[in-house]
This record gives sequence, C-alpha cells and structure tokens, in this order.
Amino acid sequence: MLIGKIVGSVVSTRKNENLVGSKFMIVETCAGTGSNKRIVAVDNVGAGIGETVLVATGSAARIGCGHETAPIDAAIVGIVDNGAGLDALDD
Amino acid sequence: MLIGKIVGSVVSTRKNENLVGSKFMIVETCAGTGSNKRIVAVDNVGAGIGETVLVATGSAARIGCGHETAPIDAAIVGIVDNGAGLDALDD
Amino acid sequence: MLIGKIVGSVVSTRKNENLVGSKFMIVETCAGTGSNKRIVAVDNVGAGIGETVLVATGSAARIGCGHETAPIDAAIVGIVDNGAGLDALDD
Amino acid sequence: MLIGKIVGSVVSTRKNENLVGSKFMIVETCAGTGSNKRIVAVDNVGAGIGETVLVATGSAARIGCGHETAPIDAAIVGIVDNGAGLDALDD
Amino acid sequence: MLIGKIVGSVVSTRKNENLVGSKFMIVETCAGTGSNKRIVAVDNVGAGIGETVLVATGSAARIGCGHETAPIDAAIVGIVDNGAGLDALDD
Repeated sequence: MLIGKIVGSVVSTRKNENLVGSKFMIVETCAGTGSNKRIVAVDNVGAGIGETVLVATGSAARIGCGHETAPIDAAIVGIVDNGAGLDALDD
Repeated sequence: MLIGKIVGSVVSTRKNENLVGSKFMIVETCAGTGSNKRIVAVDNVGAGIGETVLVATGSAARIGCGHETAPIDAAIVGIVDNGAGLDALDD
Repeated sequence: MLIGKIVGSVVSTRKNENLVGSKFMIVETCAGTGSNKRIVAVDNVGAGIGETVLVATGSAARIGCGHETAPIDAAIVGIVDNGAGLDALDD
Repeated sequence: MLIGKIVGSVVSTRKNENLVGSKFMIVETCAGTGSNKRIVAVDNVGAGIGETVLVATGSAARIGCGHETAPIDAAIVGIVDNGAGLDALDD
Repeated sequence: MLIGKIVGSVVSTRKNENLVGSKFMIVETCAGTGSNKRIVAVDNVGAGIGETVLVATGSAARIGCGHETAPIDAAIVGIVDNGAGLDALDD
C-alpha cells in the first residue's frame, strides 16, 4: 500500500454509473513511498483533507472494498494514527 | 485513478474483435498525477477532446465498465467538473 | 493501452507449455506514452515489424485475448491506421 | 517479487474492516530491485524490523495469502536467509 | 513480458507455505526493456544463472503457471534462444 496525505478532491457529475456516490480524493504520496506524485483514490473510511491515509491500488481497491464491479483502481482503506512510525517513510 | 486531458484519438481498423466499437482516446495525464505521459484509454462516458477526465487502469477498466472479456487496460470513467479542485493536482 | 512500433522478435524454444505457438514481438513504446522502453508482447492480430500497434497489458492481455491460462502480460491487440492522430502521441 | 528490509511500521485504528488484525510494515526495497523506495506491506510470516524479506505485490498479495477479500496490494511472503545471494541485488 | 538475464538466486527458509518448493531467481532486466533493475522471479522452466529469460509479471505469473493460490507476481516462463533478435532489445 501507499501512504499519502489528502490534499483535495475532485467532482465528476458525468461518470460511470458504478461510480455514483464515490468520493474522489486527491492523495499526495509520501516522498519515501513513491515519486511524490498525486493520485485520485476513492474514500472508504470517511477520511478528510489533511489526514494521512493508507491507499490500496489495483484489484485490491475494488474487491477489498466491496466494489467488485466499479471502475476503481485506488481506494483509501485506512487513516494512519498520528506519530505511528511515519518518520520511517521519509528518505 | 489518473486525471488527464484528452488530446487526440487513434483509429485501428485491424484489431481484436472484442475491441470493435471502442473509441481510443489519447489522454495526457496531469503533471501532478504521474509522469505527464500520454496513454490510450477507451472512452465510456462520451468525453471529447479538451475535456479533463478520470481514467481507471488495470482490471478496473475491463470489469468496472462491462467489458470483462475485452483487452482493455485503461478506460475513461468520468468527466471532471470545471474548477472542482483541479489546482490541487499541480505540483 | 500503450502504442508502439514493432522493432523485432525473439524466439524461445524451451518455454511454458501455454506459450507454445505464441509469437513474441519486441515493441518500442512511443516517446509520449511511457519511457520509450521496449517490451515483449504476444501478437494477436498478425502484426509485422515496422507496424504501429496498440498493446494491452496486465490481465487484459490474457483474458481479453482468449488466453486465460497463459503466462502473458502484454499483447498486441490492434494495428493503428496510418496518420490517425499519432502526432498527438509525441511530446 | 521485490526484496527489501523492514525499517518500521505504521498503525491505523480507523480502517477497512477487512484489514483488522493486519500488521503494516514499512519495507525499503533494495537498491537493485526498484527505485529504493519504501512501501507498506502486510506481514504474513512474522517478520520483524531489520529483516530482509520477499514482498509480493498486486493480486498475489491477496489471493496468495488467503486474504482474497481484503484491500491488500503488498504482502511480506518470506524472510530471506542471511548470505543467500543478496549481493547479486546490489547494482 | 520482460526479458532479462539470471544473475543469482535467493533462499528463504521461513516463507508462505504456498511458496514451498519455489526457486527464487534474481533477474536483471535488459537495458531496453525497463529500468535495468533486478527483480525476483520464480523459475518454471529450469533456467540457470547466465541464461536470458522471458519473465511474466502480475496475475499472469500465478494463473499462467498453475500456481493460482501462491503469492507469486513474477515468473520465468521461457528461455530465449541465443541470437534470436536480442540486439533489438538494446537502446
């Protein structure tokens, strides 16, 4: 999984019907866990802007979150507790 | 998911029979959401050139769009509303 | 999907039995659609050296081409028509 | 698979219910096996900080570890024996 | 698929039970087919150190090699014949 911070969200009115009700959050991945890039992940745990979250990608984002038939390839699956080892994620 | 802008399309007359009827759009991913590269994604929402779209990749592009048996690994699954948080995607 | 040009092929006599009969083509991806790298993709449409092709990757290459049980992770699924928007793939 | 060293762990109290009981380890991949980046992988073999481990990614991390319906995309699946060829992983 | 040369192997005594009997080979991918990095792939064709091999990644490595329930995300699926077009893999 990736770890990142939620930095925003996007809205899509015209979309695949299996995405209706999904919240699209913009997650900036931690420097240590990738290329420091931003991806769009569907929220499954009620996370908000500024929170540090675990993001599952690929088929895990669909099947692991009960959205087997939705076109979702990234999902927020956990909120990381403050101070819980995150310094190990920096280079 | 990735976010990008549709910058063109390609045509393929000789192709896998499960791709007949598919529209192949060239999507340039946003600077913040990857390597600013261009990928080919099948359109599922009636998007046009110049629009900013959500792209699902991997098995989500097949299974989430009702094309379980087509060789599709990237699909446009939503059109992003104007002004809806997109500035958070820039570096 | 990726778009690339076929630049060669490789032969493997000793291989997984589910690959018997597969043609392994070397595809150089277009500059705009990735890292300009070369991958090996199984041909499904009768493409030849020098042709510009669509390549599907991941499970789409198996399931979308009727090779569910073969160890294939990249397949040529279409030949791109000449002059059909390819200039949009250059940076 | 990737090979890396466990350098820490993170805690997530508020998470997907299919992740309850999972241990999230931070693994720094070996220089030779990727971008020297850090990923979060669920432990399945009782590995501890400082150990060198094999990490499976993608659907293999779910299906290969008996967590078919959990949103897991990376799992520690083996502890590498000391001195067992690891020098071949350096550039 | 990727093409690379086997440069070593690793041993893991304590591992997922579905990996018992697997041989973990270190494969250095060809310069032209990726980032010239080293990955760990399970051998399925009896390949040895120094041989040039085809590597399938993702679900193809499990399902295409008869290891549906093993946590394997990369497998050696063919040995490339000498002189068979490999020069097309160099930049």
